[in-house]
Amino acid sequence: MTKRANTLTSGRPTVVILGGGFGGLEAARSLAQSPVNVILVDKKNHHCFQPLLYQVATASLSPADVAWPIRSIIAGQENAAVIMGKAIGIDMTSRTVSTSSGQCIPFDYLILATGVTSSHFGHPEWAKYAPGLKTIQDATLIRGRILSSFERAERSSEDVEKDKALTFVVVGGGPTGVELAGSIADIAHNALARDFRNINPASAKVIIVEAGARLLASFPKGLSAYARRALSCMGVEVLTNAAVTGCDENGVILSNGRRIASECIIWAAGVQASPAASWIGVKGDRAGRITVDEHLRVPGFHNVFAIGDIACSNSNGRPVPGLAPAAKQMGHYVACYIVQDLAGGLAKPFKYRHQGDLATIGRKSAVVSLGRLRIKGLLGWLFWSAAHIYFLIGARNRAVVALNWIWEYVTFQRGARLIN
Amino acid sequence: MTKRANTLTSGRPTVVILGGGFGGLEAARSLAQSPVNVILVDKKNHHCFQPLLYQVATASLSPADVAWPIRSIIAGQENAAVIMGKAIGIDMTSRTVSTSSGQCIPFDYLILATGVTSSHFGHPEWAKYAPGLKTIQDATLIRGRILSSFERAERSSEDVEKDKALTFVVVGGGPTGVELAGSIADIAHNALARDFRNINPASAKVIIVEAGARLLASFPKGLSAYARRALSCMGVEVLTNAAVTGCDENGVILSNGRRIASECIIWAAGVQASPAASWIGVKGDRAGRITVDEHLRVPGFHNVFAIGDIACSNSNGRPVPGLAPAAKQMGHYVACYIVQDLAGGLAKPFKYRHQGDLATIGRKSAVVSLGRLRIKGLLGWLFWSAAHIYFLIGARNRAVVALNWIWEYVTFQRGARLIN
Repeated sequence: MTKRANTLTSGRPTVVILGGGFGGLEAARSLAQSPVNVILVDKKNHHCFQPLLYQVATASLSPADVAWPIRSIIAGQENAAVIMGKAIGIDMTSRTVSTSSGQCIPFDYLILATGVTSSHFGHPEWAKYAPGLKTIQDATLIRGRILSSFERAERSSEDVEKDKALTFVVVGGGPTGVELAGSIADIAHNALARDFRNINPASAKVIIVEAGARLLASFPKGLSAYARRALSCMGVEVLTNAAVTGCDENGVILSNGRRIASECIIWAAGVQASPAASWIGVKGDRAGRITVDEHLRVPGFHNVFAIGDIACSNSNGRPVPGLAPAAKQMGHYVACYIVQDLAGGLAKPFKYRHQGDLATIGRKSAVVSLGRLRIKGLLGWLFWSAAHIYFLIGARNRAVVALNWIWEYVTFQRGARLIN
Repeated sequence: MTKRANTLTSGRPTVVILGGGFGGLEAARSLAQSPVNVILVDKKNHHCFQPLLYQVATASLSPADVAWPIRSIIAGQENAAVIMGKAIGIDMTSRTVSTSSGQCIPFDYLILATGVTSSHFGHPEWAKYAPGLKTIQDATLIRGRILSSFERAERSSEDVEKDKALTFVVVGGGPTGVELAGSIADIAHNALARDFRNINPASAKVIIVEAGARLLASFPKGLSAYARRALSCMGVEVLTNAAVTGCDENGVILSNGRRIASECIIWAAGVQASPAASWIGVKGDRAGRITVDEHLRVPGFHNVFAIGDIACSNSNGRPVPGLAPAAKQMGHYVACYIVQDLAGGLAKPFKYRHQGDLATIGRKSAVVSLGRLRIKGLLGWLFWSAAHIYFLIGARNRAVVALNWIWEYVTFQRGARLIN
């Protein structure tokens, strides 16, 4: 148990990876047997399993159930070291990354995998009222806001205030938005049903607002329609073709002029890439992402790559989606590319294999699109649950998450109802 | 599932309980079948199982594993309502409690169960450097500080800085102090053993500082001596007869003049009662606790009680200790007292039955003192584990905590290593 890996072997080329998300972690692990030193830099000490973050935000799971120390994950990998630190700049002349704690990390190859944050359509001032869901901190903040809204309603003596406190707005009709809206409806109808004396939590209004024509735009139309019906059955009001044009402490204003009074708005719409593009002096796309070539290299550099959500890339003539499996494939590809490059060869271009789309809608209901296969309802939900437990890191997290889901399924309760 | 309890029955006498800890909660539950209305007020939405809080602070358990929504706990109790709010004053003339959100809660009986916070021997400025462990927030803060210390040591290039970062000081040799010191030593020797490249986490120094002559002063001397030996075997330096006379960002200064350089100091020494005494205009004792009569009534009032850590009371001529079982017994007693008072009778004086003392020292080791029974080592640890799981609230928490402990026992890992 007490054996420690040696410090890195000197003389080997160094691969520095910025970001310990799905892409960065996969790149690091894929280089385990290669004659390189790997340095993984992340401002957090943990990898976050983002697909289940909405369950932390809605009190089903604890932060530690969907997060895992990056050091632990690669503790056994002798050619890798982890630096907890925030990258703040890259010097391409000296080939070094600098961090906010004053470190200077030299590299031979650099993999940018710093991901995205929420973007509020050019209105950063909305973030205060409508937090996005990208980190553990976001999730516990949102959890507190949702639960506090019911407390405020219970305390309130005026109907207008009560209604406002019991109105929840989710902006964005992608998987995260759909999952959040379904979960909040479930909290109101089930988890809190017996807990209050002055309000009926089931009278809460949950509204999902999507600027496009349908929910789950990346899914087949049939599954989008199913998701809409399923959410409606759960009491969620689904607004499509409705853009948010204003957002403040009183609620949101929609493009059709409607005002929705709410103190609990959650942002699951646009994303903005982290500032890695500017660090290396390239121009990002509208969302700040770095356009890469067919080898996921940043144009102008043979040794700098961008992967995951921060990369704007194409495969088979179509854009690669911002999904965890895509990030992992990119991480694995770049690791292989570097190994071949060191051997003097050139890897084939990156090819993205789409594994499918999954989203839960609520208790016992999910939509799954795998190639030509379409699954919905309970069967979809079972598939979704099994897939997510399989992809979690670590036996403990798998067991705890499974146990929580079974318990929640049986009791209708949610185990992590903490207001911090 | 969706049945809601009615609002409270009008015309019944109202018992207001301030504080949803062990005492307040037990009082509320004990009144479930009585012809009164119960209003439980707490500034948090959750009851915290304080005896296991040190396991949150040392990354073994998640906050939600040791906390439970107060509303859920008494959701089924039709004569009880919960108000989440911070009490800020009591008007004994109008018999009302006021809260920070502007509510005014009338009572016929009032039970003060607001507990204690950490006290730094009259030096509130030390709290910043040496946080106490009383709430979930304290626990996650301390967890972050412990884990960050290892990160700082790993980053550091100077030996003096490294040593300082790897020195942990626990002030106070009671059960919480002993449990924290043992757990930090276990983190250093086991959980982090393989994770770093520039430091050996096992070289961390853990020092426990106790002003009195021995650790665990409330336990029999033999168990105190065993605890000292067991901690020493785990590499913990035990300092007794050593008071802290100074504390700042550089570490602590002891009464014997010794300076210990440390950036991670945890306070498990004195406590200070919450300000309830001043709300009702009585003079608290040195720790701010309210001295009560043999019926746990506040002198001068026949309808106001103080229970749990905030009460200074005697039973059989000896002071009642600040333990969870004592608080529960007091809560139950006051509930019975009120019922008898309403019926025109007078209850017998409160009698505390001491159930025993328990403290873990580390993996596979605990000390247990039950009447004449003394258990230590592995058997004590098994007894301690079983007792704590039994007293946890809710099947989910029991299952999750048991699963975490088994996993930790087998793998030597800790499942909640998050730096927030």
